[in-house]
Amino acid sequence: MEKFEQTAKLSYFDVDALNQIKLSVLIDLLLKVSSYQLDTMGVGTNNLARENLGWVVTQYHMEIKRLPQLDEEIILGTQPTGYNRFFCYRDFWVKTQEGESLITVSSTWIVLDLLKREIHENTSEFGAKMAVPEVKRGPRLPRIRLPKFDDSGVEYRVRYYDIDANRHVNNSHYFEWMIDVLPQDLVLHAQIKCIDIKFDQEIRYGDSPRSLVKVEEQEELKSYHLIQNGTGKAAEAIFTWKK
Amino acid sequence: MEKFEQTAKLSYFDVDALNQIKLSVLIDLLLKVSSYQLDTMGVGTNNLARENLGWVVTQYHMEIKRLPQLDEEIILGTQPTGYNRFFCYRDFWVKTQEGESLITVSSTWIVLDLLKREIHENTSEFGAKMAVPEVKRGPRLPRIRLPKFDDSGVEYRVRYYDIDANRHVNNSHYFEWMIDVLPQDLVLHAQIKCIDIKFDQEIRYGDSPRSLVKVEEQEELKSYHLIQNGTGKAAEAIFTWKK
Repeated sequence: MEKFEQTAKLSYFDVDALNQIKLSVLIDLLLKVSSYQLDTMGVGTNNLARENLGWVVTQYHMEIKRLPQLDEEIILGTQPTGYNRFFCYRDFWVKTQEGESLITVSSTWIVLDLLKREIHENTSEFGAKMAVPEVKRGPRLPRIRLPKFDDSGVEYRVRYYDIDANRHVNNSHYFEWMIDVLPQDLVLHAQIKCIDIKFDQEIRYGDSPRSLVKVEEQEELKSYHLIQNGTGKAAEAIFTWKK
Repeated sequence: MEKFEQTAKLSYFDVDALNQIKLSVLIDLLLKVSSYQLDTMGVGTNNLARENLGWVVTQYHMEIKRLPQLDEEIILGTQPTGYNRFFCYRDFWVKTQEGESLITVSSTWIVLDLLKREIHENTSEFGAKMAVPEVKRGPRLPRIRLPKFDDSGVEYRVRYYDIDANRHVNNSHYFEWMIDVLPQDLVLHAQIKCIDIKFDQEIRYGDSPRSLVKVEEQEELKSYHLIQNGTGKAAEAIFTWKK
């Protein structure tokens, strides 16, 4: 289980109105470190594409002590932790240059057969390339249970720059749609401390997904998110906030 | 007139469906090199903010031989070229590692008094810091003359992540709105070779700008763009394309 780390310095276009990293940029940077690592292992996007396979993330669990700020130099790290027939497990972290932990992430991945559009089963040869043990099951990520939503949310048109070379929406954009529908008072005054997000179906160019949100405060302040695409669910998430 | 250069490697989230750099990312990267340089000269955003002043770009003229691609390592450079009472002039370039010129940019800037919302007049002390000569007038950037538009375009809601710490829309997003309304056939099959863009009024959070476009082919294939914000013009542009 090899670790891989990279440093990044946050520019003004990486940050939001509070000078904190945008969640969409955070996801992009995490994917960048994992794809560099996968390339070195011979199982990166280009390697897989030759066999018509592709990496697809299915779930993230993120614990956030503090979001990195404008001009901050951070260390982004990743490590695959195990695999089984259907899933691969991977951890990520974000630290300060002084070694203070800012964010930790657990994630679950599948390898998709791009022609059959079904899960490709992982072989032991694949596990050996990743240098990870076969595990019965990975870290138990929280189940995402959403409440009923009060309204039908806000519709987004997929913009040309939202799509990648496969003409699918890069899933970092889901965070733009989720954050955008939150009450301003919450976004500007509460701190995010936990994110659970599950990706169900992909969104394509020409689709008009809707972003639904419900904010509830019981023991903790939480926002519940659904990205609905036609009759299907594209993504579900729970954000936990600290006031 | 000091030059300043930086290298950058393009990740998959920097590129569009054709694996070419997004114009919005290109603008972000150019601004990054100029802000690093301005910081070293003591006239960066933070320095100016202490006097309630801010840099505002008013026009870019960009000549594009080829757009950089996914995974390409490029060199981004900049150099201020002159100033006068109202304007500052700055060049940018993008080169390959082998020194091949990909993109050249001329630009015009003002220093805005953020409290009075008017142009701050440049002093010779300011010119000395930038190490540029006082010039009567800078490079003559093409005038942008737009045709009548046939329809009222597409409306965009400003998203939370479109705004910066000043609650204004970062003007790299204008390119998202301009590109997004072009016919797919043009975006996917023509190559952009020249961009002239002029920024008129800023767009704020809560605004609903409209992106209007007209494509015409006479001597050259051109698309004409207007970002209309309420009754005001936010930006005007002409893109020249090669089929």
